[in-house]
Amino acid sequence: MTRQCLAVVLAAGDSTRMKSSMSKVLHPVAGRPMIAHVMASIAASGVSDVVLVLGRDAEKVAAAGKLDGMAVDSVLQTERLGTGHAVLTAREAISRGYDDILVAYGDVPLITAAPLKAAREALAAGADVVVIGFHTDNPTGYGRLLVENGELVAIREEKDATDAERAVTWCNSGLMAINGKKALDYLKRIGNANAKGEYYLTDVVEIARADGGRVVAVDAPESELTGCNNRAELAVLERIWQERRRHELMVSGVTMIAPETVFLSHDTVIGQDALIEPNVVFGPGVTVEGGAVIHAFSHLEGAHVAAGATVGPFARLRPGANLAEGAKVGNFCEVKKADIGKGAKVNHLTYIGDATVGAETNIGAGTITCNYDGVNKHETIIGAGAFIGSNSSLVAPVTIGDGALIASGSVITEDVPADALAFGRARQELKPGRAKVIRERNLAIKAAKKSAQ
Amino acid sequence: MTRQCLAVVLAAGDSTRMKSSMSKVLHPVAGRPMIAHVMASIAASGVSDVVLVLGRDAEKVAAAGKLDGMAVDSVLQTERLGTGHAVLTAREAISRGYDDILVAYGDVPLITAAPLKAAREALAAGADVVVIGFHTDNPTGYGRLLVENGELVAIREEKDATDAERAVTWCNSGLMAINGKKALDYLKRIGNANAKGEYYLTDVVEIARADGGRVVAVDAPESELTGCNNRAELAVLERIWQERRRHELMVSGVTMIAPETVFLSHDTVIGQDALIEPNVVFGPGVTVEGGAVIHAFSHLEGAHVAAGATVGPFARLRPGANLAEGAKVGNFCEVKKADIGKGAKVNHLTYIGDATVGAETNIGAGTITCNYDGVNKHETIIGAGAFIGSNSSLVAPVTIGDGALIASGSVITEDVPADALAFGRARQELKPGRAKVIRERNLAIKAAKKSAQ
Amino acid sequence: MTRQCLAVVLAAGDSTRMKSSMSKVLHPVAGRPMIAHVMASIAASGVSDVVLVLGRDAEKVAAAGKLDGMAVDSVLQTERLGTGHAVLTAREAISRGYDDILVAYGDVPLITAAPLKAAREALAAGADVVVIGFHTDNPTGYGRLLVENGELVAIREEKDATDAERAVTWCNSGLMAINGKKALDYLKRIGNANAKGEYYLTDVVEIARADGGRVVAVDAPESELTGCNNRAELAVLERIWQERRRHELMVSGVTMIAPETVFLSHDTVIGQDALIEPNVVFGPGVTVEGGAVIHAFSHLEGAHVAAGATVGPFARLRPGANLAEGAKVGNFCEVKKADIGKGAKVNHLTYIGDATVGAETNIGAGTITCNYDGVNKHETIIGAGAFIGSNSSLVAPVTIGDGALIASGSVITEDVPADALAFGRARQELKPGRAKVIRERNLAIKAAKKSAQ
Repeated sequence: MTRQCLAVVLAAGDSTRMKSSMSKVLHPVAGRPMIAHVMASIAASGVSDVVLVLGRDAEKVAAAGKLDGMAVDSVLQTERLGTGHAVLTAREAISRGYDDILVAYGDVPLITAAPLKAAREALAAGADVVVIGFHTDNPTGYGRLLVENGELVAIREEKDATDAERAVTWCNSGLMAINGKKALDYLKRIGNANAKGEYYLTDVVEIARADGGRVVAVDAPESELTGCNNRAELAVLERIWQERRRHELMVSGVTMIAPETVFLSHDTVIGQDALIEPNVVFGPGVTVEGGAVIHAFSHLEGAHVAAGATVGPFARLRPGANLAEGAKVGNFCEVKKADIGKGAKVNHLTYIGDATVGAETNIGAGTITCNYDGVNKHETIIGAGAFIGSNSSLVAPVTIGDGALIASGSVITEDVPADALAFGRARQELKPGRAKVIRERNLAIKAAKKSAQ
Repeated sequence: MTRQCLAVVLAAGDSTRMKSSMSKVLHPVAGRPMIAHVMASIAASGVSDVVLVLGRDAEKVAAAGKLDGMAVDSVLQTERLGTGHAVLTAREAISRGYDDILVAYGDVPLITAAPLKAAREALAAGADVVVIGFHTDNPTGYGRLLVENGELVAIREEKDATDAERAVTWCNSGLMAINGKKALDYLKRIGNANAKGEYYLTDVVEIARADGGRVVAVDAPESELTGCNNRAELAVLERIWQERRRHELMVSGVTMIAPETVFLSHDTVIGQDALIEPNVVFGPGVTVEGGAVIHAFSHLEGAHVAAGATVGPFARLRPGANLAEGAKVGNFCEVKKADIGKGAKVNHLTYIGDATVGAETNIGAGTITCNYDGVNKHETIIGAGAFIGSNSSLVAPVTIGDGALIASGSVITEDVPADALAFGRARQELKPGRAKVIRERNLAIKAAKKSAQ
Repeated sequence: MTRQCLAVVLAAGDSTRMKSSMSKVLHPVAGRPMIAHVMASIAASGVSDVVLVLGRDAEKVAAAGKLDGMAVDSVLQTERLGTGHAVLTAREAISRGYDDILVAYGDVPLITAAPLKAAREALAAGADVVVIGFHTDNPTGYGRLLVENGELVAIREEKDATDAERAVTWCNSGLMAINGKKALDYLKRIGNANAKGEYYLTDVVEIARADGGRVVAVDAPESELTGCNNRAELAVLERIWQERRRHELMVSGVTMIAPETVFLSHDTVIGQDALIEPNVVFGPGVTVEGGAVIHAFSHLEGAHVAAGATVGPFARLRPGANLAEGAKVGNFCEVKKADIGKGAKVNHLTYIGDATVGAETNIGAGTITCNYDGVNKHETIIGAGAFIGSNSSLVAPVTIGDGALIASGSVITEDVPADALAFGRARQELKPGRAKVIRERNLAIKAAKKSAQ
């Protein structure tokens, strides 16, 4: 599309019903602020210039709305006089002479590029105003799109609608595209002679038609146009997003036993023939290769899981966890900033942080890499084919050589060469019959406490 | 409301379809027995006198139905002759001359105070009998409320209904309010000349009208009137309760990414701008202050989480866990009966029980407070700004001073003064090449075992 | 039923839309391949002879379709020329002279025995062809069952249907039973003179009627006839299966607070009055006795939980975990191939593998049975009434006697007699003021690093 388009994104709302200490459009969906979702779809539709109309938390919203490759300006809307007024706040940018002006909303984050493109294509085909509509089973409260001979003749508000008009189920989403050469003129002519004294963007339909302009509507799925006024509705947005993305992944060849219990981030990547069991949460930055298995009750964030690797159940991969082919990280194990080599096993009650674990190495249950001294973090390097006995503490910085063996329960503070055995634990001592004596003493203490009460 | 009201709560059912070793009304919803939900709503509606009509597990049900500030009597229903008979079991209390008699059910626990109040207000406005009805899309099987000129003229049972009557979607819930001065007379006149030979409470509608009394119906949401006959239906009650409460919390400013995976207790308190990630279970007695974050896969019970504190993922807070501002309890950590100070961190594979952790103290991965000697529990006191090295065992009773440092893998059995370093671990020893020898021996054993099979 | 029946199960599909490295019918539902579900229902309906019509992954599908007590043959379908052709691939078996021929599908796994029996009973009552139909609210795309005077006169495909026929909501599932003496003749007469040039099994309806045969339809619930073409639909099959089984368990007396978060395997057994909290995953081979409690966030596999035992929250029972009455396995504990005795407690951050734990023994937090030497597994035997101090490592093979006491933080490598106290840990040492020195040094290092950047 060679036509130049400016998108005006309204993001100035006070969003009081969110009862939040931050602007509504900063609330995340799939781990990304709503406003960033809108920006991504605008970019995907081929638009490169955007004006954000800001109010509350203007700086933070502007920051969240930045996107590589897009020119994003901001204007501050200091008064709340309706959507028409809000768009006009961007009058300077609008007056630069774009071919198309697109109006989107920071709190309608599920919109995809497709309807935005469709709206612009309708402009290219000669329309002066294009309204994005949606079909719904519950039109009550929405402006109805009244179409005759392919043209949108009016957006009829609920209160003004006849019974026949009320039966119309095609509704106004608020999103709109306007001929860029005429937009400023249309917008300036919006009046506020109505009950609330506000300037309504929808009035441009009537204004354009009064000029003999062509107004049409294009369709988008209702789910993409769902907005959000409180946190219950925010949860609905999240649900729609999750269902959409889970479905895409399943259809692409990912198995999810219970998709409704798998929570994805905006950037989660999962390969074909991966298996995701119930109750898995993906934070941002996770890549799971095809054929990997993520067992139930796993939580991944900033991690990479190679083909044939296995995670969980009850595993926690934190940023920088990098599992090679066939590696296993299992029950109650946490891995952070660590490479787990091919076929290596970290299977029980273990913490591996700031570390490298070599191929085929076995990390015993309860092993801890002691990577923090209270101030600085240090590295643990474990070679290939090593065996770390259970309940060992590896005090970093420390290096364990290939094929080395650490005896169970050892505290390792110095490097261990390849194929060496290291231990650091006390010799066992025995006091025959002493357990009985201690138990009886403890029971006496308990009895004494009780009688003292 | 100055009118005196007696509530008669029917809770005598055998509930055989529950296939349970205890009475149906003792089964919990949101962690509280059904009967206690009913009592709480009755109390909230301004009623202070209640008679519980009991059968199975009478003592336990009476105990579960107790509520501070309410006078709760019990009567035993020894025969099951219908709802009319059941209410009459409370004849002694009814005959005391209350203004209003309210009939509720122990297995209809989602009722709120509002319809109970509405029913009593209708009595106050002159009605003699008030039936609480509900609108439903699936009226089949329910008695239909037939209303003419604002009066309830009959409750028509399914089998007796004409087609036109069957189309009525306003149904009888069974809950009822009766003029207290007339109730005993009405109830005594209920007969059992019907197919089952039972005394039906609903007959008071006809009896009152035959006397020229005024009978009306008031409305309540269908969800509040859902009953329960088996455990599948019990799960439905739980779901309705959870959805109602989650919605209330979200609308009040709590973010839930996936509300359907958050399970609340009847008394869970969560402040504005708290974030609750997916898969969080709240047992009874939890308070989460505004701005706290409860990460995925967390389980809280009897705990307090202050503003800015962070819990999980995979954290378990048990009764008496008390997190101060900015404290963190993370991956695979369990905290019981312990104060975690401001900004203190308990982040990995740790058990803290019967303890105090000072502000800004860091508890290393794998730390265990050894609080139990097999008979008695003992306390661990850790000061502020201390650092407990990973995999340490703190054998209580023991006190660690401010700024003290415990070396990784230590067993600490004696007090450590402020700013002291303590360690209790063996010196590391090395046997070069020995790992290889051991591995080969073990492989030989394995081979021998195999060939012996 | 003394009639002999051969079931022909079509399982040759390429299932390209599954985007899978294995045949669709091998994908599991409730932990069991789809094809095995179909075989189990066929067996339960009284059929003992089956021919599997195979294509992709023929050997694996044949293996997955084996069932004790059933004679299962396989034939390879080398061409894909329609369902009629597929069934004819089994012509040799069909020609053996069975009374009934039943046609089922490897990718319609939720079918139960009931409709299969009903179809065969209709054959026994004189029908020549019996079509299994289902009622649906969304018949679009399905062949409609046109019935007159109790006979199925046609299966009308969507594209050939009149408006009146399209309004029919009884649809063809594809499953069919055919008079065994006539089946081969009918099947051979199916032609391919249609748009796709395929042989449609449904043509036998017309063929049989042209012969004056009797064709009827029997009904099955829509849910049992749900098929699967991609992994999103596979997830739907799983959901239907789970909902069906959860409901059965709840109605039988099992409490599930949030059934939608409990995931069962095909063979999960749970007794009356067991309580299953939210977020529990059952792998294969689990038996939970009545009155046991499975707390939230538990994962069980190949485990047995006796009456009154308690699991979780956050517990992981692996194959061979066997909990006796009143035993407890709790927070962040993993148990594998181990008997946990009556009233024994394994409550915090513990790994018990290849072990026996005696009655009333208490396993302290952080205990690890070191069962693996990198090559072989070894056993740990712990007696009754013992107390294993926290953070202990029990290096197998090792035996701890009844009533023995292991001091916290010990590494135990040799047997401990009954009532003895054993410890294996270093004496605590103290360096007054040293923590401060170390902290200052570490801070200096940090500062140096920072300035070096």
